[in-house]
Amino acid sequence: MRAWLTAAVVALPLTALADEGMWQPYQIPSLEEKLTKMGLEIDAKSMADLGAFPMNAIINFGGCTASFVSPDGLVVTNHHCGYGAIQYHSTPEDNILENGFLAKTRSEEKEPVPGYKIWATESMVDVTDKVLTGTQSANNGEEYYNTIEANTKALVAECEVSEDYRCDVYNFHRGAQYFLIKELEIRDVRLVYTPSMSVGKYGGDIDNWMWPRHTGDFSFFRAYVGKDGRPADYSEENVPFQPERFLKVSAKGVENGDFVMVAGYPGRTNRYRTADEVQTYFEAIYPKSKVAREEIIELIKATSAEGSDARIKYESTLASLANYAKNFQSMIEGYAKTGILAKKVGEERALLEWINSDRERAKQYGDVINRLNALIEEDHAHLDRDIILGYLRYNQMTSIAARLYRLAQEKQKPDLEREPGYQERDWDGIKAAMQRVDRRYDVEVDKAILALQLGKYAQLPASERLEDLDRVFGLNGTFDAEALKTKLDAMYATTDLGKAETRLAWLDKSPAEFQASNDPFIRYAVATYDAKMKREKQAKDLSGRLLQVRPDYMNAIIAYNESLGLPVYADANSSLRLTFGTVVPYSPQDGLVAVPFTTLEGLAAKATGEAPFHASEKQLQLIKDKVYGPYKQESLGSVPVNFLTNLDSTGGNSGSPTMNGRGELVGLLFDGVYESITADWSYNNDLSRSIHVDSRYMLWVMKHLDGADNLLEEMEVVK
Amino acid sequence: MRAWLTAAVVALPLTALADEGMWQPYQIPSLEEKLTKMGLEIDAKSMADLGAFPMNAIINFGGCTASFVSPDGLVVTNHHCGYGAIQYHSTPEDNILENGFLAKTRSEEKEPVPGYKIWATESMVDVTDKVLTGTQSANNGEEYYNTIEANTKALVAECEVSEDYRCDVYNFHRGAQYFLIKELEIRDVRLVYTPSMSVGKYGGDIDNWMWPRHTGDFSFFRAYVGKDGRPADYSEENVPFQPERFLKVSAKGVENGDFVMVAGYPGRTNRYRTADEVQTYFEAIYPKSKVAREEIIELIKATSAEGSDARIKYESTLASLANYAKNFQSMIEGYAKTGILAKKVGEERALLEWINSDRERAKQYGDVINRLNALIEEDHAHLDRDIILGYLRYNQMTSIAARLYRLAQEKQKPDLEREPGYQERDWDGIKAAMQRVDRRYDVEVDKAILALQLGKYAQLPASERLEDLDRVFGLNGTFDAEALKTKLDAMYATTDLGKAETRLAWLDKSPAEFQASNDPFIRYAVATYDAKMKREKQAKDLSGRLLQVRPDYMNAIIAYNESLGLPVYADANSSLRLTFGTVVPYSPQDGLVAVPFTTLEGLAAKATGEAPFHASEKQLQLIKDKVYGPYKQESLGSVPVNFLTNLDSTGGNSGSPTMNGRGELVGLLFDGVYESITADWSYNNDLSRSIHVDSRYMLWVMKHLDGADNLLEEMEVVK
Repeated sequence: MRAWLTAAVVALPLTALADEGMWQPYQIPSLEEKLTKMGLEIDAKSMADLGAFPMNAIINFGGCTASFVSPDGLVVTNHHCGYGAIQYHSTPEDNILENGFLAKTRSEEKEPVPGYKIWATESMVDVTDKVLTGTQSANNGEEYYNTIEANTKALVAECEVSEDYRCDVYNFHRGAQYFLIKELEIRDVRLVYTPSMSVGKYGGDIDNWMWPRHTGDFSFFRAYVGKDGRPADYSEENVPFQPERFLKVSAKGVENGDFVMVAGYPGRTNRYRTADEVQTYFEAIYPKSKVAREEIIELIKATSAEGSDARIKYESTLASLANYAKNFQSMIEGYAKTGILAKKVGEERALLEWINSDRERAKQYGDVINRLNALIEEDHAHLDRDIILGYLRYNQMTSIAARLYRLAQEKQKPDLEREPGYQERDWDGIKAAMQRVDRRYDVEVDKAILALQLGKYAQLPASERLEDLDRVFGLNGTFDAEALKTKLDAMYATTDLGKAETRLAWLDKSPAEFQASNDPFIRYAVATYDAKMKREKQAKDLSGRLLQVRPDYMNAIIAYNESLGLPVYADANSSLRLTFGTVVPYSPQDGLVAVPFTTLEGLAAKATGEAPFHASEKQLQLIKDKVYGPYKQESLGSVPVNFLTNLDSTGGNSGSPTMNGRGELVGLLFDGVYESITADWSYNNDLSRSIHVDSRYMLWVMKHLDGADNLLEEMEVVK
Repeated sequence: MRAWLTAAVVALPLTALADEGMWQPYQIPSLEEKLTKMGLEIDAKSMADLGAFPMNAIINFGGCTASFVSPDGLVVTNHHCGYGAIQYHSTPEDNILENGFLAKTRSEEKEPVPGYKIWATESMVDVTDKVLTGTQSANNGEEYYNTIEANTKALVAECEVSEDYRCDVYNFHRGAQYFLIKELEIRDVRLVYTPSMSVGKYGGDIDNWMWPRHTGDFSFFRAYVGKDGRPADYSEENVPFQPERFLKVSAKGVENGDFVMVAGYPGRTNRYRTADEVQTYFEAIYPKSKVAREEIIELIKATSAEGSDARIKYESTLASLANYAKNFQSMIEGYAKTGILAKKVGEERALLEWINSDRERAKQYGDVINRLNALIEEDHAHLDRDIILGYLRYNQMTSIAARLYRLAQEKQKPDLEREPGYQERDWDGIKAAMQRVDRRYDVEVDKAILALQLGKYAQLPASERLEDLDRVFGLNGTFDAEALKTKLDAMYATTDLGKAETRLAWLDKSPAEFQASNDPFIRYAVATYDAKMKREKQAKDLSGRLLQVRPDYMNAIIAYNESLGLPVYADANSSLRLTFGTVVPYSPQDGLVAVPFTTLEGLAAKATGEAPFHASEKQLQLIKDKVYGPYKQESLGSVPVNFLTNLDSTGGNSGSPTMNGRGELVGLLFDGVYESITADWSYNNDLSRSIHVDSRYMLWVMKHLDGADNLLEEMEVVK
């Protein structure tokens, strides 16, 4: 009988607490008593200090999280977070995505991918009053929206004193609170080490969102700065960044029941939506979006042969499409299973009762839900069209052309009046994106995606059609797929936007030059511009009205939750948060328990020799020979590969350091279990589980499989 | 957090012992010390006494096991064991298979299904010497075979002093040991109670062989006898049989780690096969048979509309086909996964080394494996043909005609010289089978099955074809599916064997009358008879040679195992056995633990409203309202539905009473988990698990769902 089927490894620790909440750093001191009881050994007050340990080591990795793990700027994040960069450096001749890569010396580290940056949060300041200045006199939604946007841009401009910093105003509670966040921007980030695909993406899309899991989802980068210690563009002269704080890496790891915490940049949650919104998302938006993604996946696969140059360019796109197709599917299933809607309806009823039980409150909040729902309904009035046009962004040519022309238009205005995303501060990003296109663009695939989305658009009823789009693509009569194909063939045959130098040249051209162009996609951008701007204006008006009503609704909820003693934390918004919890099993189904650790032997048992279960011969032999090194967990009898916690996380938390009570890195958060995906809408203490790659497996792979001794020596590995 | 995720419920009890072995009752006293330590409270010696408690209560249910649970002959077995009888009484107007049935009074109990019998084992006597008398002078395999058959028939005839008894000689260790087993035969068996399909077959084929499981796989019958207490044919005058012993039913049930035992009639295991045989079975016989079954399933479904009269007639056939198709699939997967072949090869090598390490032993057993493998190869020489002709048995018309004609031929001989299965003692069974046909026969389905098998047969190479079969069905030229169809249409249009009275009439006719018949299927039987007999003669010769060699091989294994102190028990052979074990979890995969109990809430969570997950509104409401009655397991917080043990079981054990150390019924064994199916070939202590319906769920369904208070009062329910 396997030794690990014992109480110590399997059973639920009785000390496990409910651990919902993605806390802003400033909130941590108020949680001190609870956290100390749970196992936090660091002073809770120092956790609020972004310059102190451990928060100073936490990095915004652009949609992911990372952390410094050496005094020389070594950065660890997930393999799937580094995927784009790894793929960028992969070629059919030197397929490091498949085979892995290790820089044995610093000179071997891979040059930065254009536009690839990382950020360290230096300060978060409440600027609610400043952002809302002047909104009182707004006459309509658009004015309200524009006032906030202008205030925001002014705050950002004032903050971004040099190109060393990126500043942004983050909206908390959907308009109730605003924080100005200032981040140090490091723009020379080099790939140092990635395990092979068979480690880093073991299990692939099949295991994605699943437990049991055996993925070595980690990769290493290094931050470089100029010799003066300040952020700099890539140069051979640059030197490794020396962070004030970095995390020690634990070779001891955690056991079932241990306290853990995660610091990171969770992207987006929807814990405070109205019941109507919940219903629309789960019964319309997710099902339709899932289909849209699956169609594009099918199409890319049908248009690019496996292993071809074209397919390699789209691997990252496919991964992202598949990831959320599965996410949405799980959302839909979870919705049916867990009764989220009923729960929301009940909560909303209770909120309304509480509001109406007090005359003052009734006056203040009595009609807030109705007002909000009316706006939400307006927002979803053109759902089918919005989804089709939304997925049109996967077409590069139309997206690029529209972005370039918009830039030319925005450049006509003073910088502070430009649309966010088109200000001077954004130009480098746009340029980098224009350079990167080649690595992710194939004519035939791109054309097919455009044909697919336009074909779907053409099926919409007349009332949903857009005059500009119909006109440009000749869709105003009966839909003729062949005619469209001929038209697109001609457009792609003629356009020059497939060339990087052409795209870059357009960055500096005037609107008049665009208007005089014969490039069919530039002409598309010009011909649809006015109509798009008109639609954007309407959308801003609606957004402005929502920004007025949502805060009332959120304030009602906050007041109500406080009256119940429930935690009040803001929905995730990509800003730095902390979450605290425990290593724990869970029961995915009656009669089954997911125990919190998987092992090397379980990894070997999954191996089939074929991707995504293509563990290497060398790895399988090491496992067969029980070469565990110092990374064995005695209670498990093997090296743990992945583990489960009840930490409250979501997309954006990927790559987050999982820390023990002393702030040592014991793993990297990289996924959630299937049953926890609806946690974005409603955290469930029984089912919401995060999945982490165990630091002991990382160290084992580095030591025994990949011989990354140089990195092991550089890091501070503690027992 | 669910209370039951605690050590008491989840973790492996440290007391769990390895419990391989299907023991003959006479062996139990020799295991007394171990069993007492495990938790047996009954005197081990009394377990060997077939007239004493509890063995006297154990019933052979014809391919299944059952037990007496009241002084008035109330019998409990699995729903799937009673399936045929329940189906027999089902009509589209009164679909008790779907809706369930409860006789509130004895007069409402359903009349017995023709031929349905149950048996209670009264004695098991070693008759090895008698069976082998005269075999020394056999000149060839056929003589050896016939000598054993003649001795066997004589022993059986001597034993069957009245029609109250059925006697049979059972072969243990494949010819090394023979036991004469005498069973009381009760032939008036009435259906008393079955829950609805949504309870009794909840999860259906989807959940078959799977865990987690939530099946209420039980049904109740009653044994009736004549007023004199002796077995009798059905009569209204009959009275309930009063067994000397019956089992009390436990409302307390078992907990994780508790001792359990099962008495039953396990059908067939293959724990002592040669490596060559293992390879042939897993790499040829199982894969081919699986395909054959799936083809017939497809065909039946395509030929009979769901819910139609025709489909109802084939539900039982479909269930049995699907059951073993899944079994074979699992066998194949388990073979690839668990390395059975490598294990067998290793064991065989070790056996050979042990044999050859001693001159005496080498002389006695040195070439036994080679001799055996040569015969096995001969046996498998026509595998493809054998499988096709084997599955031809699913065609009723050819099977019936052949059986009837064979009977007429056998009747020409003195009874003791007749082929087993055609002796006077078998005539009632044949008659009942001929009556039953109507309930399981549809012209179109039957014709399609015949066409399918003949079509496959026709694809065999010329060397594998049979002259008689080719001739009768006109298959000697190029295969012409249309011509065959026309021929079969004509045969089915003309035959009269679809009528019960015709079939019954043929039971009493002479070979000459058959030879003069114009019925196309009778003509088929006559035309193929001689060739079939010739093939049977060859098969018997081979069987005889195998019966000579296998005992040598088995004796070598027995001696070797004894030298290692390993348990020596015979392969299952449908005779009464006992097995002992523990309620335990297991790990189906790294990172997952199957905990030993499922609950009512888990059952409700699976409900979809559609078969096979169509739990009734009433049941779901009871669960929602937490109406547990006295059947709640405190450590689980609910009523347990099914549970897991490491008991060593196989097909035939279905319906076996699962007993606690006092011999009280705590459940019914009804299945094994997916990972344990290869246990028929090699028991694995980590993965071999039996699945049981919990007595508390049975009682809960009876009390709260079906209101079977009359039966609850009749049984002795103990806490």
